Amino acid sequence: MEKAALYHRAESEYAYLYTADEIHIRFRSKKDDVDQVWLHYGDSTIFEDSGKYQYRVLMRKVAADDLHDYWLANVRVDYRRLLYLFEVTGKDGENVLFGDLGVVENQPQQYHELLNGFRIPYLHESDRVKVPAWVKETCWYQIFPERFANGNPNISPVGSLPWNANTAPANEDFFGGDLYGVLDKLDYLAELGINGLYFCPIFEAPSNHKYDTINYFEIDRHFGDKAIFRKLVQEAHRRGMKVMLDAVFNHIGNHSPQWQDVIKNGELSVYRDWFHIHHFPVNTETEWTPDIHLRLNYDTFAFRPKMPKLNTANPQVKQYLLDIAAYWIKEFDIDAWRLDVANEIDHQYWKEFHKTVTAIKPDIYILGEIWHSARPWLNGDEFHGVMNYPLANSIKDYFLSKTISAQTLQHRLNSQAMFYRQQTNEVMFNMLDSHDTERILTVAKGNKNAVKSALAFMYLHCGTPCIYYGTEVGMAGGGDPDCRRVMPWDEGQQDQNMRKFMKELIAFRKAYQEHIIYGERQIRVLDNQLLQVNLKQHGSELVASYNSTGTPITLEKTGKVVFGNMLSVANKDIILAPDEFVVQLIS
Amino acid sequence: MEKAALYHRAESEYAYLYTADEIHIRFRSKKDDVDQVWLHYGDSTIFEDSGKYQYRVLMRKVAADDLHDYWLANVRVDYRRLLYLFEVTGKDGENVLFGDLGVVENQPQQYHELLNGFRIPYLHESDRVKVPAWVKETCWYQIFPERFANGNPNISPVGSLPWNANTAPANEDFFGGDLYGVLDKLDYLAELGINGLYFCPIFEAPSNHKYDTINYFEIDRHFGDKAIFRKLVQEAHRRGMKVMLDAVFNHIGNHSPQWQDVIKNGELSVYRDWFHIHHFPVNTETEWTPDIHLRLNYDTFAFRPKMPKLNTANPQVKQYLLDIAAYWIKEFDIDAWRLDVANEIDHQYWKEFHKTVTAIKPDIYILGEIWHSARPWLNGDEFHGVMNYPLANSIKDYFLSKTISAQTLQHRLNSQAMFYRQQTNEVMFNMLDSHDTERILTVAKGNKNAVKSALAFMYLHCGTPCIYYGTEVGMAGGGDPDCRRVMPWDEGQQDQNMRKFMKELIAFRKAYQEHIIYGERQIRVLDNQLLQVNLKQHGSELVASYNSTGTPITLEKTGKVVFGNMLSVANKDIILAPDEFVVQLIS
Repeated sequence: MEKAALYHRAESEYAYLYTADEIHIRFRSKKDDVDQVWLHYGDSTIFEDSGKYQYRVLMRKVAADDLHDYWLANVRVDYRRLLYLFEVTGKDGENVLFGDLGVVENQPQQYHELLNGFRIPYLHESDRVKVPAWVKETCWYQIFPERFANGNPNISPVGSLPWNANTAPANEDFFGGDLYGVLDKLDYLAELGINGLYFCPIFEAPSNHKYDTINYFEIDRHFGDKAIFRKLVQEAHRRGMKVMLDAVFNHIGNHSPQWQDVIKNGELSVYRDWFHIHHFPVNTETEWTPDIHLRLNYDTFAFRPKMPKLNTANPQVKQYLLDIAAYWIKEFDIDAWRLDVANEIDHQYWKEFHKTVTAIKPDIYILGEIWHSARPWLNGDEFHGVMNYPLANSIKDYFLSKTISAQTLQHRLNSQAMFYRQQTNEVMFNMLDSHDTERILTVAKGNKNAVKSALAFMYLHCGTPCIYYGTEVGMAGGGDPDCRRVMPWDEGQQDQNMRKFMKELIAFRKAYQEHIIYGERQIRVLDNQLLQVNLKQHGSELVASYNSTGTPITLEKTGKVVFGNMLSVANKDIILAPDEFVVQLIS
Repeated sequence: MEKAALYHRAESEYAYLYTADEIHIRFRSKKDDVDQVWLHYGDSTIFEDSGKYQYRVLMRKVAADDLHDYWLANVRVDYRRLLYLFEVTGKDGENVLFGDLGVVENQPQQYHELLNGFRIPYLHESDRVKVPAWVKETCWYQIFPERFANGNPNISPVGSLPWNANTAPANEDFFGGDLYGVLDKLDYLAELGINGLYFCPIFEAPSNHKYDTINYFEIDRHFGDKAIFRKLVQEAHRRGMKVMLDAVFNHIGNHSPQWQDVIKNGELSVYRDWFHIHHFPVNTETEWTPDIHLRLNYDTFAFRPKMPKLNTANPQVKQYLLDIAAYWIKEFDIDAWRLDVANEIDHQYWKEFHKTVTAIKPDIYILGEIWHSARPWLNGDEFHGVMNYPLANSIKDYFLSKTISAQTLQHRLNSQAMFYRQQTNEVMFNMLDSHDTERILTVAKGNKNAVKSALAFMYLHCGTPCIYYGTEVGMAGGGDPDCRRVMPWDEGQQDQNMRKFMKELIAFRKAYQEHIIYGERQIRVLDNQLLQVNLKQHGSELVASYNSTGTPITLEKTGKVVFGNMLSVANKDIILAPDEFVVQLIS
């Protein structure tokens, strides 16, 4: 047995309270190397008095990736104290104990040694990672306000271009989209089934994307005002839709009064400690050049001189940003904050942010923009979830650009499932594209069935799914800025088949959300390379089969066909053409 | 190469800021399996723009245990953003990349993939784990006040037994030790070199150990009063000694007014939510019996009915305990809190505790009583260090009870060195015995040279060393309560040789603390089983050699003999009899 590969970590995503009294214990071993794992566990005081673990349970092998097998046990204890030890038997028959001090021989002396046990010393509800329940049942829609709908031409920027979905926008173009437009289209979104609106920034800022905030306490005048935003939130809520705003707290726009004051007053500016300035006077270049990092004498986002980084360790800055976070919840009743460049702000700030916003609205959803794995932010006191780019990339690589095999997809997703606690997985923000990426139809080179398969796979995955505006009408577009075209509202310009599909997919997700969120999930690759996801819950099973092999596959009809994009279902068989999928329910 | 055994974790004890700008990156591989590890690293934005890591450095193999090799690189970056990737070459020639998404082939496409990189997205000083510097230079002395010295017989409990170190105390005995006695002995302790006093609980409580607090705002009347405690702190400070008190916040004494109110008023008690009560009326048994857990209807410490557990998630309780923590710092200027049963209190409480006490005294030392590995409490916002029982047990097993080999000791200590960040290791609370364990001389079955070797090994280890009162005069004693005998103050009853050794050992520690705290430490086992610790710092090297083999060993004199307990040093050779050690300095 490969003992050097055995892995566990106490009080982490490998050992945690899932519900108030259900503990998840995970364990990792080298792939195909371990035969069985017993989890010995019980109360630590009873162990101290008796020298014995009260219980043992065989762990279940729940997943594998390219290198590892993952094991799980769900346990409960009697007195809220947990001491536990793994007894691992290799396929070669070797049998060892694995605990807090590492791998030891399976001898009575080692079994009875208290300090060999891992611990969750006391199960505190206050330490449990908690997530807002509504998020699991939400289907999100991301709106880039400048491009979604123009409901009030009177407030459009001077020089706005005509609203034409065929126009490839340039970086600095304006088209006049606004919050009035979103309000006009709420019924359209409700009809689609959307119950969560994720807005890119709407606060005062000169650019079309508004990531260069000037005033966090005002709605940008080209988008509307506080009255229309208030009405928008109310109307969304009336339709059962939650509202999420985008907070850009890592940096501020160079046109902000704070940065302008630093430029003007230098070392004497009252805002000098709001930033990370190396020396004065600050460089006043505004355009990015490849060598600008050699000259910039203040920290910025990504060496972008228009985006000076805020010093979030400064108590004044901290309070300023916390006030903003509180203001839009208290005054406008928003339901969620999406946090831009969240990974580059200090943890101490996010912990205070979490306390502040949950004190006002206990079930608020806090979503961090983090592209890489994000364990340090997901321990219950910072974010609830992050934008799930590892999932997005895996789905796109397999279904759309077809650069990885079904096995690779399976391995990646199994590995990702172990990144975080299960309750975190349930509120991960799953999406396939955004204002920062190519649109999926473009990634798929126009292959609409592939796009449908990818979307279905995402909607059937654990987490809270989001589509980028226009996905439902077949919008295409390359990387930024081409992915930011205006939404076509002429039905003749919309792909109505895709729209119908999206509506059905959202309805399907809602109908089967118990399976999708809580079901026992197994990702399988059949011999014929068919990808299959099984979801068992409450005695029934959803079986989703995806054919990305490039050749038709016939599969037996084993249950009731409840969803799919396939053309052909006979009495006994289902024929999946390339890029078709089918979901069956076995009761 | 055993790819399943490769391990790293971003933003943890494997990747952290050590000083304001020095980053430690650790990496783990299967023992003797990996030939070299390159760390590729640089600014993440420069990587995004150029597709390349700016720098690479060969990692150093710094330690090994029974299963793993540990690798380290100390790096700095230019723009406070760190992206990094490991390039690992096995002894079999296999070469792979290891990053955020696991092990991937070493292909250009994978090297250039941003998401393969691990990250510390931005190096924030506010997130760095910081420790109080004075702790590293402190030699502690643990005082069990009831047994250390009786300075004021007028306040001794009625029925106190005569002060006789030969009396084996029973559980409920009193002898009359008090704070006046400690004050009387400060010069004795100063002469020994002690510069830190760690007091077992001194607040009002009925027992002799006072872990069953009745009133946290009063000194127990048998120990003294606030005036004498104030004077004691002042006099200690005047001698350069720090003062640490023991806070029992996990539970309260059953004689406390709060618990008595619950007994009296049941569900109507204003304190009903101060505890974890399952139903009313509460069980009023006070004696522990083996089956009491079947009847107790409230949570306690270790099923001890006299110690009802406090509900530290209750804001009232939280504030009450925080006020206590603040009071003794503000009013009496104590320097450190030792936190009893710290692992069973919720993390949320400790985070607030940390904020509260560091706001009053920024360099306060927060020490948790945790016997097992304690990563979850040592991330900078809860404790600075914990009581280092894994070290204590390893040293005792090797030097005193002689149940493990030198290799096992070496492996255990190397493994433990990787439990925590280096700055945490520097303030771990190292001790060999306490009021909760057998005394070391008893563990050693009276072998004084073995005790001296064990003490020397501990004083030369990274961390802040502590001796239990009386160790310096050769006190023996079995487990609780025998380890709590009264201190012999008649010099004829004291082992003056041991006292002289302790004084010299403390002086040695202080003279060479730069080597001991910051030196590059290597633990070696020579072919003849001699245990050797090398400490390189500032161009010189301390070499400590310990002979626990049971037979004499002659070693070459390679430097200046600066310390030891050996009898024989010739011109060229040093003869170490069993249980002797020597420390040489090579300049």
